[in-house]
Amino acid sequence: MTLAIAPEIAEPHAPDASFARPLSTRFTCQRATRKVRIAPRFGNGPLDVDVRYLWIGAPGAPTLVVQGGISADRDVCASGEHVAPGWWESQVGAGRAIDLERVRVLAIDWLDAGDLGAAPVSSEDQADALAALADALGIVRIEAFVGASYGAMVGLAFAARHAARLGKLVALAGAHRPHPLATAQRAVQRGIVQLGINNGCIDDALSLARQLALTTYRSGEELARRFGGSAECREGRLRLPVEDWLEHQGRKFVARFDARRYLALSESIDLHEVDPRAVRVPASLIGFASDRLVPLADLCELQQRLAAPASLDVVETQYGHDGFLKEHERVAPLLREALDGCGD
Amino acid sequence: MTLAIAPEIAEPHAPDASFARPLSTRFTCQRATRKVRIAPRFGNGPLDVDVRYLWIGAPGAPTLVVQGGISADRDVCASGEHVAPGWWESQVGAGRAIDLERVRVLAIDWLDAGDLGAAPVSSEDQADALAALADALGIVRIEAFVGASYGAMVGLAFAARHAARLGKLVALAGAHRPHPLATAQRAVQRGIVQLGINNGCIDDALSLARQLALTTYRSGEELARRFGGSAECREGRLRLPVEDWLEHQGRKFVARFDARRYLALSESIDLHEVDPRAVRVPASLIGFASDRLVPLADLCELQQRLAAPASLDVVETQYGHDGFLKEHERVAPLLREALDGCGD
Repeated sequence: MTLAIAPEIAEPHAPDASFARPLSTRFTCQRATRKVRIAPRFGNGPLDVDVRYLWIGAPGAPTLVVQGGISADRDVCASGEHVAPGWWESQVGAGRAIDLERVRVLAIDWLDAGDLGAAPVSSEDQADALAALADALGIVRIEAFVGASYGAMVGLAFAARHAARLGKLVALAGAHRPHPLATAQRAVQRGIVQLGINNGCIDDALSLARQLALTTYRSGEELARRFGGSAECREGRLRLPVEDWLEHQGRKFVARFDARRYLALSESIDLHEVDPRAVRVPASLIGFASDRLVPLADLCELQQRLAAPASLDVVETQYGHDGFLKEHERVAPLLREALDGCGD
Repeated sequence: MTLAIAPEIAEPHAPDASFARPLSTRFTCQRATRKVRIAPRFGNGPLDVDVRYLWIGAPGAPTLVVQGGISADRDVCASGEHVAPGWWESQVGAGRAIDLERVRVLAIDWLDAGDLGAAPVSSEDQADALAALADALGIVRIEAFVGASYGAMVGLAFAARHAARLGKLVALAGAHRPHPLATAQRAVQRGIVQLGINNGCIDDALSLARQLALTTYRSGEELARRFGGSAECREGRLRLPVEDWLEHQGRKFVARFDARRYLALSESIDLHEVDPRAVRVPASLIGFASDRLVPLADLCELQQRLAAPASLDVVETQYGHDGFLKEHERVAPLLREALDGCGD
């Protein structure tokens, strides 16, 4: 299976001292690969998997795990080995809400079915891989698990399975189970990608699946504001204002993501199921008012059923599910509050 | 272009007396085809088109137009020539809210791009075809235009263009313009169908487009109630409860609908744009609280901007946009009230 991220040579004993260049030289940074053993939920017994990770921050500081959606990767922020901005650059860095002057962040590239001998990959598998990686790196305690979207699901699985080593769960826009409407929308996305695989038009199919996903991430209010104009005639064809944006986003995604990885991680969301009563770690939940993919009602239910104290903060936004990526200013203070005390 | 409905021989001068068999023999019923001339909005001048219609009801009674969504047809109710139940059998018939003992109903199969020399088809074109058909049949006055979904859009276009011959507009789940989020969702549906046409997998693509459409028609509440269970393993594959339903619905649709017709009518929705100030006919608007495709806010705006008195009734339902098809008991009294006086 082709991975979306350029494969690199496995470095099972990568040195813990490759300093980040564009960032403060006070940070340590490992961006490497470790082989760890997990027992996949849908597999046939224990299995060795290569986990690609980034571990970055103040030397000796406590470690937080930070994980995003299925299309996010380990590069939460720029580092010496990856100078482009990370997917959560606004929140992770020196002086940011997740302050690399005070903590270290551990993040992985999600495992997919290619890593698991084609078996479905579960949110528990990702959580177990993170726990095994922490063992391999000698990290005894994870001060907090900050997860958004699929990352929040994996955070819940981690909290349920590895409570003894976890201080705090911070879950943004993710719940104990997917909503059936969102599952239906993802099932259609997977159907489109599979159609492309079966008929030799993978790129166009993956682009359409991404376009569909975007219509579930964003709110009607945002699209109405941006694309409320009339159809116009261009090159003999009628074009609607929203079509250019959708197709541009589709193309961008195809350039950076792999179709089979998309199938595996999309399915993983829909297989996710964690009993909130099994989560005995204090939690801060953050929801987005216009999120149609993860309705606030599901976060309210989660909050009420968790077995340890949990807060729920709601961010007003027009960006729907993507609020965790777009509402930098509103999310930052909530993260700071949730992480207050971590790294002290 | 293949039409979804089996073509029949044009009967430009069909007699007005083929009595409905399973219905009351007091009804007259014409189910035939007329050639009429229209000037399509996106075409190159006037054009003759064949319009397939049903005209059924009490002999000599005033005529209402009744039109549904893009996948509905002229068979609003069973008739002598079409004995299966119509798509709105619950509302149209002897003693029903649209009472064939007191009125006659005129309904057409939507024109599509195949009828217009491959030009895009507009809601105005459908309205003009209905007006030309009424002329051809000697119907001077349309007592009311009852349109749901795309039918409501065409009703607004009819009211704006043929006000002098129209008594009342009753518009369910349709507005003066599509919502940009719904447009985005339909653009992806058309992308899927086009992918199927380009790559020789039309049926699978049309099925997926229909599945996507269903996720926009229905409410999250309904899907959560019906498909909230966990994934199960079947034939070595993990299946989610909602997948069986989606695929079944997709197959059913492919068996009765044509891909190019779907493209044309889906696009027609997104090209729709009527200035409410041009509508000088009294109107009854009916909306559905959980309709994500046609948000209530758009119906409120429409009501406020129409140039003649208009009421807006909201039906509480878990069926979303499909409320007009599913909420028989709640919709019937609203239709009766809106049509009060018609046929007297």
